[in-house]
Amino acid sequence: MTSDMPALTDELSRLAERLRNGDRASLARAITLVESSAARHRDAAQALLNALIPHSGGSIRVGLTGAPGAGKSSLIDALGCHITAGGQRVAALTVDPSSALSGGSILGDKTRMGRLSREPKAFIRPSPSGGILGGVGGGTREAILLCEAAGYAIVLVETVGTGQSEAALRDMVDCLLLLTIAGAGDELQGIKRGLIESADLLIVNKADGDNIAAAQSARAQYASALRFIQAATPGWRTRALTASALTGAGVDELWRAVEDFTAQARASGGFQTRRKAQRKAWLRESLEGQMRDYLDGHEALQAALPQIEAAVVRGQLPARSGARQLLQLVLPD
Amino acid sequence: MTSDMPALTDELSRLAERLRNGDRASLARAITLVESSAARHRDAAQALLNALIPHSGGSIRVGLTGAPGAGKSSLIDALGCHITAGGQRVAALTVDPSSALSGGSILGDKTRMGRLSREPKAFIRPSPSGGILGGVGGGTREAILLCEAAGYAIVLVETVGTGQSEAALRDMVDCLLLLTIAGAGDELQGIKRGLIESADLLIVNKADGDNIAAAQSARAQYASALRFIQAATPGWRTRALTASALTGAGVDELWRAVEDFTAQARASGGFQTRRKAQRKAWLRESLEGQMRDYLDGHEALQAALPQIEAAVVRGQLPARSGARQLLQLVLPD
Repeated sequence: MTSDMPALTDELSRLAERLRNGDRASLARAITLVESSAARHRDAAQALLNALIPHSGGSIRVGLTGAPGAGKSSLIDALGCHITAGGQRVAALTVDPSSALSGGSILGDKTRMGRLSREPKAFIRPSPSGGILGGVGGGTREAILLCEAAGYAIVLVETVGTGQSEAALRDMVDCLLLLTIAGAGDELQGIKRGLIESADLLIVNKADGDNIAAAQSARAQYASALRFIQAATPGWRTRALTASALTGAGVDELWRAVEDFTAQARASGGFQTRRKAQRKAWLRESLEGQMRDYLDGHEALQAALPQIEAAVVRGQLPARSGARQLLQLVLPD
Repeated sequence: MTSDMPALTDELSRLAERLRNGDRASLARAITLVESSAARHRDAAQALLNALIPHSGGSIRVGLTGAPGAGKSSLIDALGCHITAGGQRVAALTVDPSSALSGGSILGDKTRMGRLSREPKAFIRPSPSGGILGGVGGGTREAILLCEAAGYAIVLVETVGTGQSEAALRDMVDCLLLLTIAGAGDELQGIKRGLIESADLLIVNKADGDNIAAAQSARAQYASALRFIQAATPGWRTRALTASALTGAGVDELWRAVEDFTAQARASGGFQTRRKAQRKAWLRESLEGQMRDYLDGHEALQAALPQIEAAVVRGQLPARSGARQLLQLVLPD
């Protein structure tokens, strides 16, 4: 490890300035830099973040999660356009489902979010990790900071609901929207209770055409269930709503509910309390992540690992003894 | 850190010998020692484990999980007695629900498992952590090893189903039993799909009295759902059964299913493959746990932490920069 604060080069200064002026290409480049796991990018990423963090924190961070097929990208498209129509700039950090499979975008976000991608006040960034949030570098959290430094008032963060990723999303947003659809509610495919408990708003999506009555009935069921559930945010009562990305019905109400939530959380102090707790947890995660990186890159440890691991795997050496032998190679007495 | 292998003192040698001879009090003492988080116990715990690990690994490790009220402790009582009646010694690492609330046992396992606690061939050990498995020291995993060194052919490990603890349990047992009851299957309270996917046997418990028909119907529904679910163990098809701890109905079938499972997993090689993967993962967890302990006990880091944490919490310092500053206090360049 180097022991000095990494320097902000002239090139990085110019990048930061263009980003601050709202240049989307510069924002995209900056996100690529902070998401990079390459060791040669670490100093630059850190210097850039140090320079931009005073300008971050000003957005409302809204998470959207739900099972595949719940219509997350269409709703982000509709909600994003609703926000820009109201005059605000919106950034969407999305999951590109094709990139998880192919490593590259076939049916990219320009297609999935056709309207929003043409909005000058919008910035869309597909996740490079196929929707896996968090990770060692805290890429998504840092991407949020960069969007804020670039002046986006609203940052939408999408994740596919798979269990672990919602918890990671909850830990990085102010308001969490859980999307579902009518008819998904049988016991095996329905929303998990823990997930409902972590959401601030529950949206029954695709409430259009022949599906309206079923969506309204599902909404009523969820609303009734919500009365027995501890809300994720103290002082807020989690609401169930219907929406349709197709017709736009309910999108305005949905956005007003987010604004209600934010106003109430700011008034109660819960907004800042959550942000502070998130930053504290993030420091801890960063520390452990960097520690893991250090261990993974430690030559003496990696050289000793195969033999120790083999003894543990054969059941001859307790894991705690193996771990201790490895750490003795790394740490001063 | 000391750099030598901790020594097995005469006192520890005698403890190990008595444990190997099946003395239950010595086994209980040994578990207390390895579960201790006190620094002064670490060398002794490590020396004891090093001495006993060659005698471990010989049991069938069976996990039981399910929501509160699914009847886990009664079924462990019935199943444990069934096993000892067959001539085998059984150890049960259980959750004492009272200890989680009061810090001590009011309605202890002697009451909850009245029959099994009087069996000379049985050993019952309530978890000191109110059912939270894993943890830095890997206490439960090491308790399993000690039970095996003491000659227990079957080790039952109980956890309350809360999401995270089942994953920890899956990672330390050979065969996972998921308990449920009829009528718990509505969309909010039912078993999560991910949980079903991690189980080897699904038991609809309390199939007795007026509840028999409902339990059989629930079993049939689960059996039908299981056809669409990827089994947790390659080559095994997860089965749904009914059981009653009250009448004993189904307990024999349940145990034969565990034996079928074990025979099949041994024949396919899956049993050893899983054990090896578990030990490998355990080494990694131990390494990270000991690293965290080291950071938590590092004076210079802890002295610098409040100021750096405050800057991160105020949003003035990126978490990754704060983490890097902290690590520079710990690690050689």
